[in-house]
Amino acid sequence: MSLLKAAIIGGGHIADQNHIPALKKLSDQVKIVAVCGRDIDKTRLMADQHGIPGAFDDIENMFSEFDVDLVINCTPNNLHYDYTMQALKNGCHVLCEKPPAMTAAQAREMADLAKEKGKILAYNFQRRQTSEYLLLKKCQIEGQLGEVYHIKANYLRRRGIPGWGNFTNKTIQGGGALIDLGVHILDLALGMMDYKIPDKIAGNMYDFIGKTGGKGLKGQWDPVKFDVEDACFAYLTFPGNKSIALSCSFALNQKEEEIINLEVFGSKAGAVLNPFSLHTEVAGELADIKFPFLEETDVQLKNTTAFIDAISGKETNICLGEEGAVLQEIVEKIYLRAGL
Amino acid sequence: MSLLKAAIIGGGHIADQNHIPALKKLSDQVKIVAVCGRDIDKTRLMADQHGIPGAFDDIENMFSEFDVDLVINCTPNNLHYDYTMQALKNGCHVLCEKPPAMTAAQAREMADLAKEKGKILAYNFQRRQTSEYLLLKKCQIEGQLGEVYHIKANYLRRRGIPGWGNFTNKTIQGGGALIDLGVHILDLALGMMDYKIPDKIAGNMYDFIGKTGGKGLKGQWDPVKFDVEDACFAYLTFPGNKSIALSCSFALNQKEEEIINLEVFGSKAGAVLNPFSLHTEVAGELADIKFPFLEETDVQLKNTTAFIDAISGKETNICLGEEGAVLQEIVEKIYLRAGL
Amino acid sequence: MSLLKAAIIGGGHIADQNHIPALKKLSDQVKIVAVCGRDIDKTRLMADQHGIPGAFDDIENMFSEFDVDLVINCTPNNLHYDYTMQALKNGCHVLCEKPPAMTAAQAREMADLAKEKGKILAYNFQRRQTSEYLLLKKCQIEGQLGEVYHIKANYLRRRGIPGWGNFTNKTIQGGGALIDLGVHILDLALGMMDYKIPDKIAGNMYDFIGKTGGKGLKGQWDPVKFDVEDACFAYLTFPGNKSIALSCSFALNQKEEEIINLEVFGSKAGAVLNPFSLHTEVAGELADIKFPFLEETDVQLKNTTAFIDAISGKETNICLGEEGAVLQEIVEKIYLRAGL
Amino acid sequence: MSLLKAAIIGGGHIADQNHIPALKKLSDQVKIVAVCGRDIDKTRLMADQHGIPGAFDDIENMFSEFDVDLVINCTPNNLHYDYTMQALKNGCHVLCEKPPAMTAAQAREMADLAKEKGKILAYNFQRRQTSEYLLLKKCQIEGQLGEVYHIKANYLRRRGIPGWGNFTNKTIQGGGALIDLGVHILDLALGMMDYKIPDKIAGNMYDFIGKTGGKGLKGQWDPVKFDVEDACFAYLTFPGNKSIALSCSFALNQKEEEIINLEVFGSKAGAVLNPFSLHTEVAGELADIKFPFLEETDVQLKNTTAFIDAISGKETNICLGEEGAVLQEIVEKIYLRAGL
Amino acid sequence: MSLLKAAIIGGGHIADQNHIPALKKLSDQVKIVAVCGRDIDKTRLMADQHGIPGAFDDIENMFSEFDVDLVINCTPNNLHYDYTMQALKNGCHVLCEKPPAMTAAQAREMADLAKEKGKILAYNFQRRQTSEYLLLKKCQIEGQLGEVYHIKANYLRRRGIPGWGNFTNKTIQGGGALIDLGVHILDLALGMMDYKIPDKIAGNMYDFIGKTGGKGLKGQWDPVKFDVEDACFAYLTFPGNKSIALSCSFALNQKEEEIINLEVFGSKAGAVLNPFSLHTEVAGELADIKFPFLEETDVQLKNTTAFIDAISGKETNICLGEEGAVLQEIVEKIYLRAGL
Amino acid sequence: MSLLKAAIIGGGHIADQNHIPALKKLSDQVKIVAVCGRDIDKTRLMADQHGIPGAFDDIENMFSEFDVDLVINCTPNNLHYDYTMQALKNGCHVLCEKPPAMTAAQAREMADLAKEKGKILAYNFQRRQTSEYLLLKKCQIEGQLGEVYHIKANYLRRRGIPGWGNFTNKTIQGGGALIDLGVHILDLALGMMDYKIPDKIAGNMYDFIGKTGGKGLKGQWDPVKFDVEDACFAYLTFPGNKSIALSCSFALNQKEEEIINLEVFGSKAGAVLNPFSLHTEVAGELADIKFPFLEETDVQLKNTTAFIDAISGKETNICLGEEGAVLQEIVEKIYLRAGL
Repeated sequence: MSLLKAAIIGGGHIADQNHIPALKKLSDQVKIVAVCGRDIDKTRLMADQHGIPGAFDDIENMFSEFDVDLVINCTPNNLHYDYTMQALKNGCHVLCEKPPAMTAAQAREMADLAKEKGKILAYNFQRRQTSEYLLLKKCQIEGQLGEVYHIKANYLRRRGIPGWGNFTNKTIQGGGALIDLGVHILDLALGMMDYKIPDKIAGNMYDFIGKTGGKGLKGQWDPVKFDVEDACFAYLTFPGNKSIALSCSFALNQKEEEIINLEVFGSKAGAVLNPFSLHTEVAGELADIKFPFLEETDVQLKNTTAFIDAISGKETNICLGEEGAVLQEIVEKIYLRAGL
Repeated sequence: MSLLKAAIIGGGHIADQNHIPALKKLSDQVKIVAVCGRDIDKTRLMADQHGIPGAFDDIENMFSEFDVDLVINCTPNNLHYDYTMQALKNGCHVLCEKPPAMTAAQAREMADLAKEKGKILAYNFQRRQTSEYLLLKKCQIEGQLGEVYHIKANYLRRRGIPGWGNFTNKTIQGGGALIDLGVHILDLALGMMDYKIPDKIAGNMYDFIGKTGGKGLKGQWDPVKFDVEDACFAYLTFPGNKSIALSCSFALNQKEEEIINLEVFGSKAGAVLNPFSLHTEVAGELADIKFPFLEETDVQLKNTTAFIDAISGKETNICLGEEGAVLQEIVEKIYLRAGL
Repeated sequence: MSLLKAAIIGGGHIADQNHIPALKKLSDQVKIVAVCGRDIDKTRLMADQHGIPGAFDDIENMFSEFDVDLVINCTPNNLHYDYTMQALKNGCHVLCEKPPAMTAAQAREMADLAKEKGKILAYNFQRRQTSEYLLLKKCQIEGQLGEVYHIKANYLRRRGIPGWGNFTNKTIQGGGALIDLGVHILDLALGMMDYKIPDKIAGNMYDFIGKTGGKGLKGQWDPVKFDVEDACFAYLTFPGNKSIALSCSFALNQKEEEIINLEVFGSKAGAVLNPFSLHTEVAGELADIKFPFLEETDVQLKNTTAFIDAISGKETNICLGEEGAVLQEIVEKIYLRAGL
Repeated sequence: MSLLKAAIIGGGHIADQNHIPALKKLSDQVKIVAVCGRDIDKTRLMADQHGIPGAFDDIENMFSEFDVDLVINCTPNNLHYDYTMQALKNGCHVLCEKPPAMTAAQAREMADLAKEKGKILAYNFQRRQTSEYLLLKKCQIEGQLGEVYHIKANYLRRRGIPGWGNFTNKTIQGGGALIDLGVHILDLALGMMDYKIPDKIAGNMYDFIGKTGGKGLKGQWDPVKFDVEDACFAYLTFPGNKSIALSCSFALNQKEEEIINLEVFGSKAGAVLNPFSLHTEVAGELADIKFPFLEETDVQLKNTTAFIDAISGKETNICLGEEGAVLQEIVEKIYLRAGL
Repeated sequence: MSLLKAAIIGGGHIADQNHIPALKKLSDQVKIVAVCGRDIDKTRLMADQHGIPGAFDDIENMFSEFDVDLVINCTPNNLHYDYTMQALKNGCHVLCEKPPAMTAAQAREMADLAKEKGKILAYNFQRRQTSEYLLLKKCQIEGQLGEVYHIKANYLRRRGIPGWGNFTNKTIQGGGALIDLGVHILDLALGMMDYKIPDKIAGNMYDFIGKTGGKGLKGQWDPVKFDVEDACFAYLTFPGNKSIALSCSFALNQKEEEIINLEVFGSKAGAVLNPFSLHTEVAGELADIKFPFLEETDVQLKNTTAFIDAISGKETNICLGEEGAVLQEIVEKIYLRAGL
Repeated sequence: MSLLKAAIIGGGHIADQNHIPALKKLSDQVKIVAVCGRDIDKTRLMADQHGIPGAFDDIENMFSEFDVDLVINCTPNNLHYDYTMQALKNGCHVLCEKPPAMTAAQAREMADLAKEKGKILAYNFQRRQTSEYLLLKKCQIEGQLGEVYHIKANYLRRRGIPGWGNFTNKTIQGGGALIDLGVHILDLALGMMDYKIPDKIAGNMYDFIGKTGGKGLKGQWDPVKFDVEDACFAYLTFPGNKSIALSCSFALNQKEEEIINLEVFGSKAGAVLNPFSLHTEVAGELADIKFPFLEETDVQLKNTTAFIDAISGKETNICLGEEGAVLQEIVEKIYLRAGL
């Protein structure tokens, strides 16, 4: 089989550290032919360091010079839509960084175009690939959880407002803790509940700490420029009486430095994601089950592999365009109803 | 000062173990003159054991024979309204067991009548009297928490469906985990947020485990007769962008045998109720504050004392009729919107 | 149904503290009519304290005066045979303290006579009644362990040579750590492996510490009079390639004050008895299962109940005469091959 | 003094990672002149990487071209005998990997030939060189243990069947858990008991997990090709009433990932090897002694040093030919009596 | 042997709870004949409760009415001298509560008079009788500590100013933390160093917390009436280059609620008293020795027994008059040099 | 601004590993122009490795060839005075390693000359720069400690006599544990108490372990050549009734491998340095405050930066000449009064 030809759009850290190394580990299936970034000098440098032939600062030039099968879209949130649409129009499969887009309408369009073009559009929700989440899904599929009816989904940092990048700039990011952190854990929770649009959404957002300033644990942010939510709490009710309580924060006066977890409540068993445990009955007695030997995995490599597998028609667990559109619609609704 | 004359209505365990002993410790201020119960033989026995002169199975007989200043209402939930109204009409102060009533309208009427009669109507939310909650309130009043904007309120049992009494009978109890357990922690949470009616309420209720059966940790219940919620999750948004996430259960597949806690998030500090801790900044650094010597207190004695103090016109922290009416309205709305 | 009439033989601590209280809790099924002990004054005193009509120092007098349905034999080891045989001959069911007898031949005779008489002969191996062992057996029967092929059975004390009684006197006890402690754990292990005679037995016995003396944790013993084994290690191979490694000690230079445990190795799962845990695979991953809420039970009450149930023809898990004969034969063989 | 000339036989991982680095650290005493392996290309590569002049795939060619004083035999188990004999015949000292051989007769011949030739034949039981074992022996020699009478020797893995190499192939390895893992801990135990042939040997072997398959912790093995024991339990009685209980496994449903330990019971003190502790009496009270600062040592370097020292006539603690013959005889007897 | 006749002087808590129960347990050797207290009614009541024939509020009346062999002096500190002298003059042996007296001169007189009269004068430093201190002394005598050259002696409470009694009244007590708490641990430290007068004494005393007030852990004290030291730090240098660093406090802003400990540094080993451990070398390696089974003992009973034994001429470890005089001299010097 | 020109005196480990790397990180402010060491070859090599132009074995040659603004004095203790004086005379600022000198008179002269020359003389007490000590000082300045009245200052090693260098040679070092380790923690303690000369000094020194030998944890030292104190305990009383208890050791039979800590007792709060905690009252309750996120800092870099800042006239927390003179006077007095 001939190699798939890949192009990278967005020349930042996440391309350099995550996506390019993952693709290079799959060199028997894919070859990176070009990278396109805002700053042509830095882009050229990155291309040289990784042995990538093409370096561009204009995506159309790239498509005209190189034959590209798939694109990795690592641009800022506010560019996800434009470049993904362009790549799909150029007949490429796309693995786009999260969140899918800035609006629900954009994410809908992206999914529709991918369908129309018969191409794979996937989002890089790589936390689906942890051993813990795969085991959680396996337990659900094997029926050990019974019916899952309520999930607490948390991505909470005590003082983790990033002191770099554009994370506190609403125009570029589209929001704060919810769109940057919350989407990860919301994606996992939705994956346990058939990934549907909720009947009802309630919630609240806050910016007390972000706008006041204080000790930072991920560098110091500028409270004057802070215009996103530092914390978001939302409650989602789904058809069939299921529910998710979502909590996410950049900054919250809690004990823990960071909590990233799902607590899943099913009719036969409950599960905690990190560290993974089941809480159920065995032989008629209440039992707690631990898994002491779960392996830490290279989640980016596994997600990139899933993307490649999806292109070649295999069944995978990757987040595809339709799910991305659902997720974006939920995020948009939370911002509408709970936003600052 | 002459002694206050007290009567007990309801001759069950909670009268015998909690209220009568508390009143007897306050014998310099109050004297129990009568007890009224459904079964006259058992009531007489209890009266004799505690040295109480009168024993009745009819409340009007009691009022006609004895001059009563205050009444402790320890009847089942569905009788709270009737006996409290009767006691107020007879010119008594009333300390009524929780929950206030079966409906919001009842609780409203009770509060209004107490006001009209100029009597103290109080509810026995005795968890307000723990050292931890008193310290939490003190920290809030001293300004150490800043503005409190979100609270997670949990009263969660793994398998704590009571195997005795009427706890799984909706007609008598008015509900399950919410009205029996949730009200305690909701009362504490409301007390941190000015005790208002929420703008919006969302929530869900479940009965999977209750209706299926399984290993019990508080005796074995009968799943066939189980007709209340075994778990309730609710989300309350208050005027001024404040919020409470409430979770309560008789049965839930979680790790812990029982969780009774508040997590309070304020702009200057967060607090956890049990064990009590503050999470804040001290001298510009993130700090956790623990209080290793908090005393366990006799919360019933302290609440009964607060009731007596309220009668004599002192400022106390007891839950009065107005707050009871607010609480009951919230409970009713949760049942309406989230109920099974 | 009329009450069973019980007699106690042996007026010592174990009658007073264990057997009589258990029988009294079963007063709807059994009534203690007489007690027979060596010292008539002490026996009379015990009878009076417990409200037992008859007190004797001669068993035949007792049988001639009272109509007895069942006998509890709480005499020293070297009298188990005589009194059990006499009781069976008098047409009584017998619950005999462990060990069954001093020799395999005695235990065989006892089982045969019980069979001939159509009476229940049972031994008081009450550790069969712990929640942990009952759960272990349930897991085995439900197939969760797969085939059980090896067991490590330990009853090991660091310095637990009793400073009272006859525990270090071979003539009265028949041996030391094996016959006093080891039989308990051996009984449990055999119960997991069809209770058969082993093909091969190896082992060793020691008396270094017992004969030297040293710090005692159960009072001080007299090393000069010490003539039993202080430690015994044995290895049993059973038909069908199964095996038990047995270790027991009164005194051993180990870290733990006392170890009483089974480690059970099966083809599907392993189990540890105390605290109970399973070690297996769940959903394809290695898993450890804990049971945080197992209850401590009144093992003597449960074993006495099982004895009564056996008399009335019910299936129980009590150790009956045949199993006692097997156990005694194994003990005898270990003493023959491994003894000092 | 002129340098000793060393040759390596067997070009695998253990030569590359253990023996060659150890010899190079002793470059003031020894110089590696040649390496001989099955695959001449790989052997040449290894020789070049380590700066070793000679590379061969035929041992006789090696001996004819190079003058060799000592040989390190790192071949698979089934070649230990042939190459060690050849090396001895060529007048070399030999450090042979464990186990000594495939049969007791081979090990006996090897020891006899070494004696006849006046050469050092040693086996690479490098666990003798840990700080813990050296301290254990020192305590024994100083008399702190008193008489050592019983040892529990364990080398138990939960799921450690190697997924590589020939570890599950009986023809090449000679067996499974016993000959690969058990010999290490048996060597240590025998070293505490004068290294004698036992009077009696009992034991059992199993292959349930190995033949069924399951989750592996050292890669996945092929249950179809598995033809060795996955677990072995043996009980050895020695002259003078001493005993060893040996347990070893590739796979066993236990809690721990791996247990490698000795529990040593002496008349004055007991000792646990890992972490090292003594359990004894001090000043008339029961005492536990811990050694918080024992150093982790380079056991291969220390064992190779002991081999060189033995060649130059020094007293060392290395396992010599005679001990190897005893160990192999015991292993053979366990396989005969307990084998599958 | 006829029984010793004992009288109790001082009718407070320590007589009632400690000394009288201890004497009653020694009823085969001693009989309490009288008790003398300030308040004759309370004294009579105590005498009746304990079955003591005589009750007095005048010591001379007591001596005139009863023949007394020994006296227990449980009066407040400022009365130790007077009553002990009177008792000695009346030919009694005396066990006096600590501290010996208010001044060094008094303690010297008391010791001299006891000597002159040939009577036992002992002080109730009952912490000498703990298993830990007895073991510490045994280790010293057996030579395991080598030469003891430095001791850190601590009796430190975080907020343990007693809210009752006269503990904060200098006129009655003679001082604060040093004379009430420090003397206990100083006595133990001196007992490890030949109980000599130091060459040099340095130290400081403080009363910041005592005079300011704050949260109390032993009731609330009155800061206005507080006129003793709340903390004392002293450094003692003894002939032969030995030293003790003494720290004691009623109140100190430390983490621990209470620290009562000795750290003893010897040339061969160091020891910590609570929990007892040795830190030394065993078999050439640094070793920590713990004693997991030390028993909690009835220290008052053991000290009273020692007093009785001393009377009958046996060698004991009780604090006698001469040691008391040394201790009091040191205490006085610390107050002179370091006092407030 | 032009770069400061730095010279290094003393070509050992501390120059190579600490001072040169720190200066190179400040290359925008300072440039190393020369290094001067005893062994010209080694000095030349170090200079080349670090790209330093000049290498000398004579300081005057260095000053004559290079224009030097500041000098880092990393020579042995007995050369601190000579080279610092020479550097000051040559018009350089000096950062001198600790301790300041061998005698109080030297340190006084050094401080005076620096003052006279208008140059910065600083000592490298870099532990002042830890996050913990900076926070401790901040808490003191903010008033959270109240008045600090007693400090326990400990730098205690169990067996940390250095097995290399001159640490056990009094002629070169000027002493042992006190001058090498104790000065660090004494400097920190004095910094909490206005850095004054004490009114009174008591203390003792010991050399039992150092002169006897034993297991070393920092290599093996030679007990025959050991002529310094292995432990020093001192007690300092300051004007205004403040006190410091100082304990330091190279070797002491304690449990911990190493203790480096301050315990600070203030009227409002106490503090422990490592890990940092406060012990105080919050909201009227006793509270412990922990700081879970304090960062480990590059203390050498921070101290070198403080030195450079001091040169450019900024306020810093570095130890200057006057403080060094006070410290040296205290050290000298301790040696005079407590020395061996």
